Amino acid sequence: MGNADLALTDMEGPHRVPLPPERPFLDTFRANLKETFFPDDPFRQFKNERGSRKVVSALQYFLPILEWAPKYSFGLFKSDLIAGITIASLAIPQGISYAKLANLPPVLGLYSSFVPPLVYAMMGSSKDLAVGTVAVASLLIASMLGKEVSAAENPGLYLKLAFTATFFAGVFEAALGLLRLGFIVDFLSHATIVGFMAGAATVVCLQQLKGMLGLQHFTTSTDLVSVMESVFTQTHQWRWESVVLGSCFLFFLLLTRYLSKRNPKFFWISAAAPLTSVVLASLLVYLTHAENHGVQVIGYLKKGINPPSATSLEFSPPYIMIALKTGIITGVIALAEGIAVGRSFAMYKNYQIDGNKEMIAFGMMNIVGSLTSCYLTTGPFSRSAVNYNAGCKTAMSNVVMAIAVMITLLFLTPLFHYTPLVVLSAIIISAMLGLIDYEAAIHLWHVDKIDFCVCLGAYLGVVFGSVEIGLVVAVTISILRVLLFIARPRTTVLGNIPNSMVYRRVDQYPIAQSIPGIFILHIDAPIYFANASYLRERISRGIDDEEDVLKTKGRTNLQYVILDLGAVGSIDTSGISMLEDLKKNLDRRGLQLVLANPGSEIMKKLDKSKVLEGIGHEWIFLTVAEAVGSCNFMLHTQKQADSNGTHDNMV
Amino acid sequence: MGNADLALTDMEGPHRVPLPPERPFLDTFRANLKETFFPDDPFRQFKNERGSRKVVSALQYFLPILEWAPKYSFGLFKSDLIAGITIASLAIPQGISYAKLANLPPVLGLYSSFVPPLVYAMMGSSKDLAVGTVAVASLLIASMLGKEVSAAENPGLYLKLAFTATFFAGVFEAALGLLRLGFIVDFLSHATIVGFMAGAATVVCLQQLKGMLGLQHFTTSTDLVSVMESVFTQTHQWRWESVVLGSCFLFFLLLTRYLSKRNPKFFWISAAAPLTSVVLASLLVYLTHAENHGVQVIGYLKKGINPPSATSLEFSPPYIMIALKTGIITGVIALAEGIAVGRSFAMYKNYQIDGNKEMIAFGMMNIVGSLTSCYLTTGPFSRSAVNYNAGCKTAMSNVVMAIAVMITLLFLTPLFHYTPLVVLSAIIISAMLGLIDYEAAIHLWHVDKIDFCVCLGAYLGVVFGSVEIGLVVAVTISILRVLLFIARPRTTVLGNIPNSMVYRRVDQYPIAQSIPGIFILHIDAPIYFANASYLRERISRGIDDEEDVLKTKGRTNLQYVILDLGAVGSIDTSGISMLEDLKKNLDRRGLQLVLANPGSEIMKKLDKSKVLEGIGHEWIFLTVAEAVGSCNFMLHTQKQADSNGTHDNMV
Repeated sequence: MGNADLALTDMEGPHRVPLPPERPFLDTFRANLKETFFPDDPFRQFKNERGSRKVVSALQYFLPILEWAPKYSFGLFKSDLIAGITIASLAIPQGISYAKLANLPPVLGLYSSFVPPLVYAMMGSSKDLAVGTVAVASLLIASMLGKEVSAAENPGLYLKLAFTATFFAGVFEAALGLLRLGFIVDFLSHATIVGFMAGAATVVCLQQLKGMLGLQHFTTSTDLVSVMESVFTQTHQWRWESVVLGSCFLFFLLLTRYLSKRNPKFFWISAAAPLTSVVLASLLVYLTHAENHGVQVIGYLKKGINPPSATSLEFSPPYIMIALKTGIITGVIALAEGIAVGRSFAMYKNYQIDGNKEMIAFGMMNIVGSLTSCYLTTGPFSRSAVNYNAGCKTAMSNVVMAIAVMITLLFLTPLFHYTPLVVLSAIIISAMLGLIDYEAAIHLWHVDKIDFCVCLGAYLGVVFGSVEIGLVVAVTISILRVLLFIARPRTTVLGNIPNSMVYRRVDQYPIAQSIPGIFILHIDAPIYFANASYLRERISRGIDDEEDVLKTKGRTNLQYVILDLGAVGSIDTSGISMLEDLKKNLDRRGLQLVLANPGSEIMKKLDKSKVLEGIGHEWIFLTVAEAVGSCNFMLHTQKQADSNGTHDNMV
Repeated sequence: MGNADLALTDMEGPHRVPLPPERPFLDTFRANLKETFFPDDPFRQFKNERGSRKVVSALQYFLPILEWAPKYSFGLFKSDLIAGITIASLAIPQGISYAKLANLPPVLGLYSSFVPPLVYAMMGSSKDLAVGTVAVASLLIASMLGKEVSAAENPGLYLKLAFTATFFAGVFEAALGLLRLGFIVDFLSHATIVGFMAGAATVVCLQQLKGMLGLQHFTTSTDLVSVMESVFTQTHQWRWESVVLGSCFLFFLLLTRYLSKRNPKFFWISAAAPLTSVVLASLLVYLTHAENHGVQVIGYLKKGINPPSATSLEFSPPYIMIALKTGIITGVIALAEGIAVGRSFAMYKNYQIDGNKEMIAFGMMNIVGSLTSCYLTTGPFSRSAVNYNAGCKTAMSNVVMAIAVMITLLFLTPLFHYTPLVVLSAIIISAMLGLIDYEAAIHLWHVDKIDFCVCLGAYLGVVFGSVEIGLVVAVTISILRVLLFIARPRTTVLGNIPNSMVYRRVDQYPIAQSIPGIFILHIDAPIYFANASYLRERISRGIDDEEDVLKTKGRTNLQYVILDLGAVGSIDTSGISMLEDLKKNLDRRGLQLVLANPGSEIMKKLDKSKVLEGIGHEWIFLTVAEAVGSCNFMLHTQKQADSNGTHDNMV
């Protein structure tokens, strides 16, 4: 605690900036590799353990169930049971709806809520995530596979491709996790996801017009223009029975959502509403025989649990390429949603999620799923939120849901025979409307205009182009933004905050004062090839401007240029050359280059490239204040020498 | 000058970090746009001028010749005349050689050294650049166009496509300049260019094996494997006459280069050597009739200056696409070389080059060239270096060269009839060997390993793949490096430098001491979507680690976490959310989050997103020292309260 007192005596002359000690190349390389791929240090926990204990720890690491199952209690189970049944009542109608959206047999939606949740319960590290299929990925499968193979004309091949795509998605997800490349998902920014999700939700809702209007034929495109064209060219095909039934149930679903939102205690109202709607609608159709009056129904659903599908995987060209492409794109999107959902709920409950481990879990669950007649699953936001609200405690709620779905598959599938498609459309629409987060978009506009552009780009790309176009637009804008930040770093003039030794930006702190004869520039970003020539010109122009101002004011000429490198985190050889050029340029103009607060990487590279010798180690200071102090001392000395009669030296 | 004295009294309590004043969105937008696209403020010089004077200034801006021509003197002309004749003697054989390399009629090389230099002399702002064709772009034209159209089977169409590609290259270059997108060229880093040039030089040398060995048939691929295969499968076709003649002249050329290098005064020896070789070799062939003994010669060259070629431009599909692609890629590469060369020599002579203006000049010169039977030209390094060494003063040396070439075209073309191809190959090889800058590669290895990888990637990509592959590999590695820097910013623990108020990285400054109860972290990069979740986890882990260390040492628990944001140049909404999450997380752990030295952009966004309220303005300090001072004060107060007997509050 004495340091603060010591810190007040700042009179001991300038500190030296040391050269970092030479480290073997392999050491640096290993350290960088570790920080890039193992920033979370996953093996840290095993470090101090030995022998069999280490094996147990490693198993627990890969199968978190081994960690929590032994401590599992009846109290926890009671919570998980309630949560599991609640999400099952949501999972059954949603599963059927989304399978229809993917142009797959409806029963696949139920299969996909049985096996994958069991795999996730063993391997996943989230306590709140509920596994299932998602609307966006389902639609994407339909649109990407549909381009190559028609689901209506060749359902067998289409199904095979769906399983193969799921398999590749799983392999890709697991590989990302195993190769520690989880950070790729981070490149989907929050703004991208807001725009993308809203766009996808819009597109999914538009697709539901088919079911709501009772249309038989519909466009395979997903963009707004095609869908509107398809809808309004066949107004004579609209079925009022469908429209009325759909609107009623949509109203009911939205009402329950509104009630649950107003009072979170009633979460179960909106969670149970879809199943209630399905039961009511099925009864209604069964009693009125509406299926004969233009209301389409699900029809026959095969009884029994998942049949194996390993032999259905299709690895022969040309189909393997389309399955691979679909798998990778849908896999990444599903992963991004799942990881984001897992992270959000972990934050609420204050526990850690290991992104790479989650990816392995998602990957395994999809690989196993693809072998057992499931299609792409992840952790959907809606279902996980219901799970969280229902008070789940561990991944056991997924097991409960899986068992409930299994019972449905074994005994209750005939009950869904009369379920009208229009109620499934209503369920999808009501779920999708929740994904259009216009408040987040408004927030983006207020806080960061570029992020808003990213968001809007993603939205418009999805709605007017396709899901892939929207994604590409958003990722491109995001990356361009990063590159532009690197290409155009801010250089700001620093001034002294009165009565302190602190130097800050004069544009941010109007009280900051400039020092006569000394020009202080702060560089705000790493110096890289992408900005080296910009910075070279920008610094020259900064000095020109300053000299112009001084000239008009009739002040002292510039003698020293101090570069504050405190914010320059990294430098490459182009950056080093830039500093070398700058030094030469300033020498030619009779100005002295002074560096303040360079990091160890910069010092090392300046030294190795011999630029340090050119600048002179004595012109490198720990702080701007010390650099200014030294420069001022020299200016004083020179002035005194001048006034002592050596005017001959002046030109 | 009094500031330095004032700066020593640092006792007035903490400074506030002000919120930046609200600025209208359009103002910020305009300022950002200006800094991105007009960082060099090109219209600055006209600001204070009026009426006709403004028009003259604008004309002078676009046609620099109007600026320097009126001041032109006989003294300058004498220098330019010598330089111009010297570069002409290099331009004639090089022009013919490179046109052969591009599979174009040799006379095009002469045409291309006549019109484009005249255009550049009017519009270019470099005083040292000598305009001409370059080997790499020539080879690229041959390989890209050769994929679609065979130069041997359909020379007419091939020629048309070459003109069209040149036209598109010119349009693209001019557009980049007009749209102020010059910074795109900066994304070709120094390391990329070193590796790419060396690779291209290797490939070009390999192609010369055809001429050197006197082969009639040769592969159209450029990669090492194909060329070696092509050479060694036809050993029986090798012509010893060719080999002997080529080796002699290559030795002569390399010897003159070596002599010139040892003594820069003898630059003219190496500059005149190519033309001397051509004259000697032609004489030799003429006298010995070697053309009948397996030595291939240039043959008939059409007399007369450039015929118009506007009608030869081919804009019909599918050829337009290949011409467009070739034009854009070769245009960028030519531009990068020309701009780099111009900038380098401008730096030696201490004048400024306006990159965007140069692009417009290059673009115009290629557009005009494509209409007058020229193919792609730029500012080649070799020719410009000779120009510089020959003492050129203005772009007039280009005019002299153009006139010399014109005279050659009008009267001297028959003299080249007996010039053997093998001597052209020798000229190309000797020029190319100078481009393999192995010293630069070694320097890269010493200073920056990643830059070395970029360089090696470009080299291997070009040599074993193709010129395009090498370029894509290098640009990808470069951009990945930038993205990786953003994705994995350094977070470093700060400590107090004894006897000062300065806080620096403890890994760089081993003397820096930590403060009990306070953890200070420095973030080294902008906080963006790409690193927000990494930083969230990294900061948590940093705090965990610190608490572990403190526990084992039995020291005071952590109470304050200070984030030094001085190096955080920018933040987006994901970054803001990260800070919000961090605040919540720390609150839960009973730690206080303190921010030090946030920039104005960060303050603005924290305020707009209401995160500032959550953190509390009173926990934001100007410097780390002031933050530590306040925290220490609180810790003291609390300790005193504790020792005064209020132990009940402690748990």
